[in-house]
Amino acid sequence: MTTKHERASALLAVSTVIFALRKDDETGGEPQVWLPLVRRIREPFQGRWALPGGPLRVGEDLAYAAGRTLNETTGLAPSYLEQLYAFGDASRSSGAERVVSIVYWALVRGEEAERAVVGENVAWFPADHLPELAFDHNLIVEYALWRLRTKMEYSRIAHAFLGERFTLAQLREVHEAVLGRALDPANFRRTIEASGAVVATDEYLTGTPHRPPRLYRYDDAVDLADAGPLPLQQHFFKGES
Amino acid sequence: MTTKHERASALLAVSTVIFALRKDDETGGEPQVWLPLVRRIREPFQGRWALPGGPLRVGEDLAYAAGRTLNETTGLAPSYLEQLYAFGDASRSSGAERVVSIVYWALVRGEEAERAVVGENVAWFPADHLPELAFDHNLIVEYALWRLRTKMEYSRIAHAFLGERFTLAQLREVHEAVLGRALDPANFRRTIEASGAVVATDEYLTGTPHRPPRLYRYDDAVDLADAGPLPLQQHFFKGES
Repeated sequence: MTTKHERASALLAVSTVIFALRKDDETGGEPQVWLPLVRRIREPFQGRWALPGGPLRVGEDLAYAAGRTLNETTGLAPSYLEQLYAFGDASRSSGAERVVSIVYWALVRGEEAERAVVGENVAWFPADHLPELAFDHNLIVEYALWRLRTKMEYSRIAHAFLGERFTLAQLREVHEAVLGRALDPANFRRTIEASGAVVATDEYLTGTPHRPPRLYRYDDAVDLADAGPLPLQQHFFKGES
Repeated sequence: MTTKHERASALLAVSTVIFALRKDDETGGEPQVWLPLVRRIREPFQGRWALPGGPLRVGEDLAYAAGRTLNETTGLAPSYLEQLYAFGDASRSSGAERVVSIVYWALVRGEEAERAVVGENVAWFPADHLPELAFDHNLIVEYALWRLRTKMEYSRIAHAFLGERFTLAQLREVHEAVLGRALDPANFRRTIEASGAVVATDEYLTGTPHRPPRLYRYDDAVDLADAGPLPLQQHFFKGES
């Protein structure tokens, strides 16, 4: 601790990975994970697609900037916005100055995604089939997908895609869309019921011709916020109760 | 997007929350979550306790800096080191320049914690009974505890505290220490077995006088890294396979 080291500083940027479950407009089929990208209109990487985002503004808070980029790109307000990771290694910046990108991810419900405005130079892509993106954004999307798929197993991420009440078939469809593979309905039901994460309600799905399926909800009692409310949580789970 | 906004820059700092399960040297009793803190020897907050860490050095990578502060404070190499959160809102810095702190958290096994060197101006504190710390470090520890307790329910965090093989009683003790409350042994066994997260091995704990308890391990087949290995994961789970 006697050596004098020069202190690192950086330019700050915020990027947002916005995941929605969508069906392919042309081929139809099962829903998949899609995300909107923005075409860069200046160097570096002019013409390449990139995550929504950009420089943080002086005085601007991180989560606010993430919500702003989400809104500017899609016209949506996020129901689930969470900090994903800070990318800031010295080697990732090509310029003279280090750039630290704080990456947020947002999950958008199907009916919200349909309302999304697609502006100029914005397009939606299936997350598993992306072109070569600007900067290290392919790596960031890969990591976000890995977190989504890992977290799906144990958390209420499906809730962000589904709403308050859902059938087990709807929940399974979300899991299938995120994991990218079919799941056995009986096994899925057993696993979900054993986990205790969801509870049956007294309500049934309406508008179905035959025997209407039962609606479930996440068990709030298992919500593990035992540590009590933290001011910070509001940043992570905006719109979640 | 026609307005010109001034771009934010920041000084970079890294802090590390180092959690270990320890018994109180004086009172004994059940193990609890402890963490080492460093007494500040200069302003601001001179004399207050703070998380290990400090300015990031020019050219230094984030995870490397976190491992360095862990090593400088405890003499330990981390078995579990993961980025927790980037704190960088404009309001958190008292000086003229914004400071972005990238916070890592490390979990240290019991036998490692016992080997930890306690240097000058370093002391261990029970995480639930901290004095008023420097900066916003109380808030950071609270958030880290919340993440630990939430994540414990669904993940292999216990593994970082336990090693490869463990009895269900040892696993329950880790959960009890982290959650800060006693758990019913029969309920705990049922929940863990239903989760499918751990599998019984053919081995038994040796050195016990009566019927030796069976050893369990985490089920690698349930390791959810289906998305394939990402270069980034090595940063998060250093030392984990």
